[in-house]
Amino acid sequence: MSLFNVDLKRVVDDSYEIEIGYELINGLVDDLGTGLLGGAKKIAVITDSNVLPLYAKPIASKLAQAGFKVEMFVFPAGEKSKTRETKARIEDAMLEKGFRRDCGIIAVGGGVVTDLAGFVAGTYARGVPFVNFATTLLAAADASVGGKTAVDTPVATNLIGMFNQPRKVYIDIAAWKTLPLRQVRSGMAETVKHACLANADMFSFIEENLEDILSFRRFACEYIAENNCRIKYQVVMKDERESGLREILNLGHTVGRAIETVSDYRLLHGEALAVGMAAQALLSARLGYMSEEEAERVISLYQRLGLSTNVPDYIDREQLVRKLYTDKKVREGRLRFVLQKGIGDVVEFAPGVYAKPVEEELAREIIMEL
Amino acid sequence: MSLFNVDLKRVVDDSYEIEIGYELINGLVDDLGTGLLGGAKKIAVITDSNVLPLYAKPIASKLAQAGFKVEMFVFPAGEKSKTRETKARIEDAMLEKGFRRDCGIIAVGGGVVTDLAGFVAGTYARGVPFVNFATTLLAAADASVGGKTAVDTPVATNLIGMFNQPRKVYIDIAAWKTLPLRQVRSGMAETVKHACLANADMFSFIEENLEDILSFRRFACEYIAENNCRIKYQVVMKDERESGLREILNLGHTVGRAIETVSDYRLLHGEALAVGMAAQALLSARLGYMSEEEAERVISLYQRLGLSTNVPDYIDREQLVRKLYTDKKVREGRLRFVLQKGIGDVVEFAPGVYAKPVEEELAREIIMEL
Repeated sequence: MSLFNVDLKRVVDDSYEIEIGYELINGLVDDLGTGLLGGAKKIAVITDSNVLPLYAKPIASKLAQAGFKVEMFVFPAGEKSKTRETKARIEDAMLEKGFRRDCGIIAVGGGVVTDLAGFVAGTYARGVPFVNFATTLLAAADASVGGKTAVDTPVATNLIGMFNQPRKVYIDIAAWKTLPLRQVRSGMAETVKHACLANADMFSFIEENLEDILSFRRFACEYIAENNCRIKYQVVMKDERESGLREILNLGHTVGRAIETVSDYRLLHGEALAVGMAAQALLSARLGYMSEEEAERVISLYQRLGLSTNVPDYIDREQLVRKLYTDKKVREGRLRFVLQKGIGDVVEFAPGVYAKPVEEELAREIIMEL
Repeated sequence: MSLFNVDLKRVVDDSYEIEIGYELINGLVDDLGTGLLGGAKKIAVITDSNVLPLYAKPIASKLAQAGFKVEMFVFPAGEKSKTRETKARIEDAMLEKGFRRDCGIIAVGGGVVTDLAGFVAGTYARGVPFVNFATTLLAAADASVGGKTAVDTPVATNLIGMFNQPRKVYIDIAAWKTLPLRQVRSGMAETVKHACLANADMFSFIEENLEDILSFRRFACEYIAENNCRIKYQVVMKDERESGLREILNLGHTVGRAIETVSDYRLLHGEALAVGMAAQALLSARLGYMSEEEAERVISLYQRLGLSTNVPDYIDREQLVRKLYTDKKVREGRLRFVLQKGIGDVVEFAPGVYAKPVEEELAREIIMEL
């Protein structure tokens, strides 16, 4: 018998910059010219059918003018495309076009695009560099920080994926105006979640400036984008691998993810999250972590955003309860919820533990009320 | 405009142990009991149809006796199973059986199993811990060190995958006796490659002890296993990401990988590699990096192992030349080869550069001779 010790301790630096601003395409092209993607000359622009004409084509065209070899890889817009099959089709198309490990990837779009493209980048030739050009409010709130990439499967959302950090993230606020209202509302669902878990002032700001946000006044959008990044960043910085603190970002997602899946993605992520946030608010109030009034403020803000906080009629609530068990936080067969502590904080049940075991019966009770 | 700097510089420790010995199943069960897989109680044993009765079932049964919840996930033996589709089927089965991020994975088998299972582990719930229980000579030579995991696609081998380090590797020499002769020969192809690129003494040892190796005399097997690990380890230690030095492990693989694909996997990896090693030996001699006699020694050792060094008749050599361009070492459309410098060393063309651009015409000429 003999033993070998393979010593792979080393310093890893995955640091990157998030740029928040207006009209960032030229800056992206400049950054690539100065080696942002490791000097890659061959660039895959991954996007969806909605974003293609608005942003992906202009980006591809400017990159081509700057001397890059650029190909676009487009899939149908929507969460339904976030699958292993779409990933495989993009990979096959990239292989077919001669992309090898010296290429780079630009994800142009919302969270579905950045989740999928970041996952493609992570496993293409065992990893090629990528940047995110985020065009939606939701991507600014959710997908821009943290390095989470994933696809959905028929059984569960986001369970197949990896941590993969981009080389840079661009949040182009100018793009928000091009979003359908439904997308904007969906993006605001994550923004309100951030306020609920970390920043009471931000919650008040949204309550007071709802009209300015929904009409894309610049000061309001910048405030939203910056605070979203700051909150997510502070959490992710402290805990890159979601073992403890990062779990707080899962606030509202226990029920939210389950509804999203059971609805077969008829609900957008943020629409499902609104119901999930209402569920956790009721649960938090029931368990004494926030007042009934605070729970009502949370639910009411979602409703003012035009988001329903009720389980849609077409959903079988018992099926929804069963689906809760596919949640990533489930341990040894028990449901676990992140819960709000008033507005602007979450409950830390034990040092570093933020997901509390909850009896199925109580979860069912809340779901039946919504 | 505002900028955020996401600071993700940190120390990562992916170190692990390789245990080489006889009958290691009990040791594996003990290690899991003391938290090797992060205390996971739910274990997925991933294996192929050949290894299932020989090792996977005994392992699963002993783990169950020790109190673990164990499920086996089995796919048909052979490189043809190393696909995204097999990966998806395993994932779906694991999701169906309720595996979540608190599970662990044991890969039991040869290189196909460890490549595939390591990739499954890397993207399941964004990464769960795994160990490799390597039952083949090839896995000992090739798959046990380095953390490379991957699947094949219709267009190219191993181009979709990731670096993912196991928590431990077991090389059970007792298992080699159960291998079909064809597998043993295939495994020896990588072993001889290691000797060619790094260790002239090992090359001589194999020449002199060929009978003892092929009849699994313990001293010979241990020598082979240990030296394979040592060579691969030294290379991988110095260069985990294959940017420079690690490329030398690609010796013989430019033509080898291409033949393997064009043969539609009728050839085992090692059988294809034997032809690839002959190709690079002739090329190295033609370019003056080794003598004709040394090239002959390499080719002759492969033949003594019972491996053909000729391109099979059923392969279209022009198609083979075209297929060379799917090689991962291709840069800006040019073929690149790692070349031997005598026996036991490789050519370093420039500091840290081991893959030399080679004209297609010269590559074609060599392929036509084989």
